[in-house]
Amino acid sequence: MEKEKKLRTVATIRARSFSVNLDEVELPSGRVTERIRVIHPDAAALVPILEDGRILFVKQFRYSIKEETLEIPAGKIDPGEDPEACIRREFKEETGYTVRNLELILKYVPAIGYSSEVLFIYKGTGIISQKGNLVSSDEISDLKILSFDDIRSYINKGIIKDGKTLIALYTLYCNCFKKDG
Amino acid sequence: MEKEKKLRTVATIRARSFSVNLDEVELPSGRVTERIRVIHPDAAALVPILEDGRILFVKQFRYSIKEETLEIPAGKIDPGEDPEACIRREFKEETGYTVRNLELILKYVPAIGYSSEVLFIYKGTGIISQKGNLVSSDEISDLKILSFDDIRSYINKGIIKDGKTLIALYTLYCNCFKKDG
Repeated sequence: MEKEKKLRTVATIRARSFSVNLDEVELPSGRVTERIRVIHPDAAALVPILEDGRILFVKQFRYSIKEETLEIPAGKIDPGEDPEACIRREFKEETGYTVRNLELILKYVPAIGYSSEVLFIYKGTGIISQKGNLVSSDEISDLKILSFDDIRSYINKGIIKDGKTLIALYTLYCNCFKKDG
Repeated sequence: MEKEKKLRTVATIRARSFSVNLDEVELPSGRVTERIRVIHPDAAALVPILEDGRILFVKQFRYSIKEETLEIPAGKIDPGEDPEACIRREFKEETGYTVRNLELILKYVPAIGYSSEVLFIYKGTGIISQKGNLVSSDEISDLKILSFDDIRSYINKGIIKDGKTLIALYTLYCNCFKKDG
């Protein structure tokens, strides 16, 4: 395997839960170039399937694109935490609901050009409403429950534009790559 | 719409084609927190469909995850360049092939938690082999042509793990959200 060899780290930004390096690297060709590398903890996301088959989404302002978006619940895995524990915790914080049954449906790298992040996507059933459904996160502005037809329309209109949400919905609803199916 | 208000930029890294800021922001709740924001140019990717229906992939070492991956060709859009021109240029650089017909199949945000990047995914037909198929990019180690069965197997084994590649293949092959289909 050909590798890119790190020569030095030129600059670093340290944030609370991850950091970003600008590295000078040498390619196998000998050319020296630079790489941004976001050293990101792994993350977990959940497609919460309610008893009637509809999906619970969160509305959230995203500073990255300066827009409010419609996404499945997700969050960064804390040090030492396992992905399932992470998504149970994040789901409760973001929605006030809890999830009983989790099934891992995909593990992938969202931004392979510059981030080490690996994202675990779960399908969740046994979604239990807690009293009052209190959302303890101040980053979630609202919850939204969508049917398949709503989802289809929101995808085709470009309203659902978040990568993990799209890939989770495709994997769940339209997985023509699935083994034994 | 509730917004996150930028108070100040705490740190910045400037790379050749994009930059990263660590910003201090105030949430609608009044809480002050921090956001990493990768200010990334938009990007374009292509699913190159050969005449026999198989797909052309690139093999590439990814510094982000320190692994060699199998991906569809893609690249960052240069300032002033349109997405179609970008993917024609990148495709030729990365594979030595050219593409005649482009159809936009998806536009999405790959890493919404920390990056402004928007990715345009095209389906490409009329793939023409140039003499010798000279790859002018020193970041591509090999080309690989895969059938649907190969792709299915590589996805199920976790060998194809790149987000844009997965979402492109799902959109192309298994799009149960498609209008009029």
